[in-house]
This record gives sequence, C-alpha cells and structure tokens, in this order.
Amino acid sequence: MRIEGLSLNLATVRRQWNLGEAVEACARFGLAGVAPWRDQVIAAGPAEAARIFKANGMRVTGYCRGGLFPAADAAGRQAAIDDNKRMIDEAAEIAAEGIVVIGGGLPKGSRDLAGARTMFAEGIAAVLPHARACKVPLALEPLHPVYAADRGCVSTLAEMLDLCDALGDGLGVAVDVYHVWWDPMLAAQIARAGHRIIAHHICDWLVPTKDILNDRGMMGDGVIDLPAIRRMIEAAGYRGVQEVEIFSNDWWAKPGEEVLRTVVERFKTVCGPL
Amino acid sequence: MRIEGLSLNLATVRRQWNLGEAVEACARFGLAGVAPWRDQVIAAGPAEAARIFKANGMRVTGYCRGGLFPAADAAGRQAAIDDNKRMIDEAAEIAAEGIVVIGGGLPKGSRDLAGARTMFAEGIAAVLPHARACKVPLALEPLHPVYAADRGCVSTLAEMLDLCDALGDGLGVAVDVYHVWWDPMLAAQIARAGHRIIAHHICDWLVPTKDILNDRGMMGDGVIDLPAIRRMIEAAGYRGVQEVEIFSNDWWAKPGEEVLRTVVERFKTVCGPL
Repeated sequence: MRIEGLSLNLATVRRQWNLGEAVEACARFGLAGVAPWRDQVIAAGPAEAARIFKANGMRVTGYCRGGLFPAADAAGRQAAIDDNKRMIDEAAEIAAEGIVVIGGGLPKGSRDLAGARTMFAEGIAAVLPHARACKVPLALEPLHPVYAADRGCVSTLAEMLDLCDALGDGLGVAVDVYHVWWDPMLAAQIARAGHRIIAHHICDWLVPTKDILNDRGMMGDGVIDLPAIRRMIEAAGYRGVQEVEIFSNDWWAKPGEEVLRTVVERFKTVCGPL
Repeated sequence: MRIEGLSLNLATVRRQWNLGEAVEACARFGLAGVAPWRDQVIAAGPAEAARIFKANGMRVTGYCRGGLFPAADAAGRQAAIDDNKRMIDEAAEIAAEGIVVIGGGLPKGSRDLAGARTMFAEGIAAVLPHARACKVPLALEPLHPVYAADRGCVSTLAEMLDLCDALGDGLGVAVDVYHVWWDPMLAAQIARAGHRIIAHHICDWLVPTKDILNDRGMMGDGVIDLPAIRRMIEAAGYRGVQEVEIFSNDWWAKPGEEVLRTVVERFKTVCGPL
C-alpha cells in the first residue's frame, strides 16, 4: 500500500544505488515520491530519468539543488544564473514539483556575508521569471548556520520569507528540520510561511555529531522533536509529503534495503503527529 | 608597553601552561588581562590565583563559565544553581570583572529545547540576586546553533537580550564573534545591547572547519569580518577589551610563546577598526 506522506531524497541512498535502482526500491517500499539530485538526473539523462519516475508511479517531490549564486565576479554570477535556468528546464522535463534552492557560500577570499546574501537575492530575482514561465516553484531552503561560510549564506526562515515577501509568486520555503530546529523563531516563522511551505525535509540531529556535513541522523536517533515541528507545519496549512534526507557516512555504509526499511518504520513511529 | 585593548582567554593556552605560567607569559607580552577557566582557578586555588593575577598586574576580564542550568530533574537544577553561586564567590575572590554564562545543553534524553531555554532563564533568575550582592556581572553568551543540543541551548543575542530586558540589572551579554557572526540580526542586536555588552570575544571561523568544537581559527585565518563587528560593538558604546579565545587542536599543539606572539600581531593587524 502506498505511504502517501513519505518521499525519499535520493542523496540518502546515493552511494548504494543509481537513479533507476533507487526509484525502483522506493516504489517497492511504497513511497509516494522521490527527490533526486541533479548529478543523478544528469547521469541517467533527464528524458530517461523522467521515464523512470513515471514507470514507477513516483512523484518527484523536489529537485536538488539550485541557488548558490554568490560568486567572486560578474561572470561567475551570470554563470550561476544560467545554470539555474538550465536546472529549471530539467525540473520541468522530469515533472519535479519544485526546486530546492540554497544560498551558496562566501566567494573565495570574501568575508562579506551580507554581500553574499545580496547576491543570492539578486540571483533569485534573475531566475524567477523563467521558473514562473516553466511553472516550477522555487523552494528557498535556509541552511544551518554551521554552513553559512561555505554552503548556505542564508541561515533562517525569516530571511527566506523576507525574500518571498519581496519577490512574490513562484517562491516558497523548504523547511528542513536539521537546518532550523534550533531557531527560537521557528514556530513564528512557520506560521508566517503558511501556504508558502513547499517542502518539509526530515532527519535528526545526533549528539554527538561526528561530521559537520555527513553525520545526520535517522529520525528518532537524535534530539529533534519531529512531531512538534510537524504539528507547526500542518497548522500552517501544509499537507504535502515529508521528505527524508539523510547525509550520513553511517547510513551510506548500510545496504539500501535496510535504509529504506528503517525510513519507513521510523516514519510511522516517530515522525508524528503522535 | 601595555596593550590596553587585549585580553587572553586562558583556554587558548590550556594545554601549554598552568595558570601561573600562562599569566606570567601574558604579562610579558603586554596583555591587559586574562580570562581564566574555572578548572584553572580551582587547580591553583582561588586565593593563589588572585595573588598571581595581582602580582602580574593583570585584569581578570572574565571567568569561564557558568550557566548550564538545564537538568533532568529538580535536584540537578538546584545543584547547578548552587554551583553557580559558588562560582560567583570565586569570581569575587579573584576580582573577575564578570562571569561568562552559557545555556547548557538538553538534559539527557530530552528533545525539549524550549524547556531547556526556560530552565536557563529560571537558573539565571535564581542566581542573579547573589551575583548582584557580590557585584559580579553575568555576561550571557549565546552559543553558535551548532552547539544547541549539547552545550548552549540559547543561540542568539536576541534571546539573551530578551532575558536581560526581563531580569534587569546585573546582566549583560558576551558577544563572541565565533558564535554570532552568521546572525542576520547581528547589527541590530548589538545596537540594541548598547551598554549591556560586557565582553567581546574574538577568534575566526575556518573553512573548512575540521572539528565542531576544537578547530577555531586565529584572527585573520578565517572568514569573519572582525573589523566590521568591532565597529558595531564600539558604535554601541563598548570600550572594553577584546578577549582572544581559541579552542584549537592546531594551536594547542604549538609552543605557547608562538601562540601569544601571533595573537598580539594579529590583534594589531586584523582586528580593526581598520
């Protein structure tokens, strides 16, 4: 039976399976959808990727990941804008329900975080007309402040929602519990987001965290109050899937079937509302 | 000649020197003050520690670290309150200009971050009368969100200033650039803090950061715009020292003299305002 509320971000099993293998496994386990990364779609070819999703009856709940607009010079910024436009075309081709967009890090040698955030906003403004024309929503994802220097210069839902307010239709936010669980303004900003919540990513924060990037936890193994955040998100009106996204050296070392079996079990037992 | 604006947090050289050796070295290099950790003061004995500071003409710009109030039960919370009161007595004995106070992590098994923050606020309220009586200001230090689970449940200056607003005299904030540099509200919250800025800690954020706790950078080696933050802090009215605090496996492995020489040189060349 189909588990309507559950999608898998395919980074979670990227070391175990290629795109076709991963999608087939997700279908076997009854997931409603998957969210592929760009390298996975490019490796298969967008047309073949689209065929794989369709043949397995899988929604494409997100496409990872765009944004990353800050660059050291105008040519670099334009290259990022052009690349995001190509990604929007790919998203349309694979019928992705949205693109996950992150801030990007500081340009090499820069200490200007405010400047990087401005470049991010300008990049979004530059690609938004194309995203609207292609009917591909952009889900702006704040990243945990630990990534502000090298990966995601925009750290909070408040900042991303300010950008949504300023630029209007075609934008929303991705609420990844790993990135925002610590935020004292979380409840208020989720309520503010309302129908602009496009994606809800789940995993867990492990104590201790052994690796800043690749030691995310399976739901239930860490300290995030997943049911509480889910209640906030549903109170804001969100009725979409929860997308499991786990970057983890530990889980990447396990058989893909074990990962999926655990994802399904934990989704049912610890992800609430309980 | 004395470098009036510079103090060293003694965690920076904790693996090289004991308290007496560290203080004497700081005096030789002309620093205005030091900020010892509690284990260092206890190891020497508070009376002997006070003698060492005085004999070397060193200010004690801070005493690390109190707070850590969240606990799994009432007995644990009371023990933390009692321990903070003892620490206030020690601070008075060594003539520390303030105590650095951090949130503490989630109690074991807890996922209730809001509850931990409440316990922190209650703990501060419980020890504040004693701190006032001893004339020892409490410098509330938000920690980087990467430590929210296991070390500092209060992550932002905004939250700490809310607590200062609520509880009044005897409280202020410690602005450690490592913990707050990413905060999109940084400029606004530093301006809000005004005369309540009790401490200004400096180091740098390295890219990549190899260890979440012990890979902090020497000023100038990372991406934090130190002069910009110093300008904000001075515009808010702060005229106190900059206190260098570097937890670093790399710097702990170098001779203490080399660390101090580098601290002094970087303080003069990269810490602004430039």
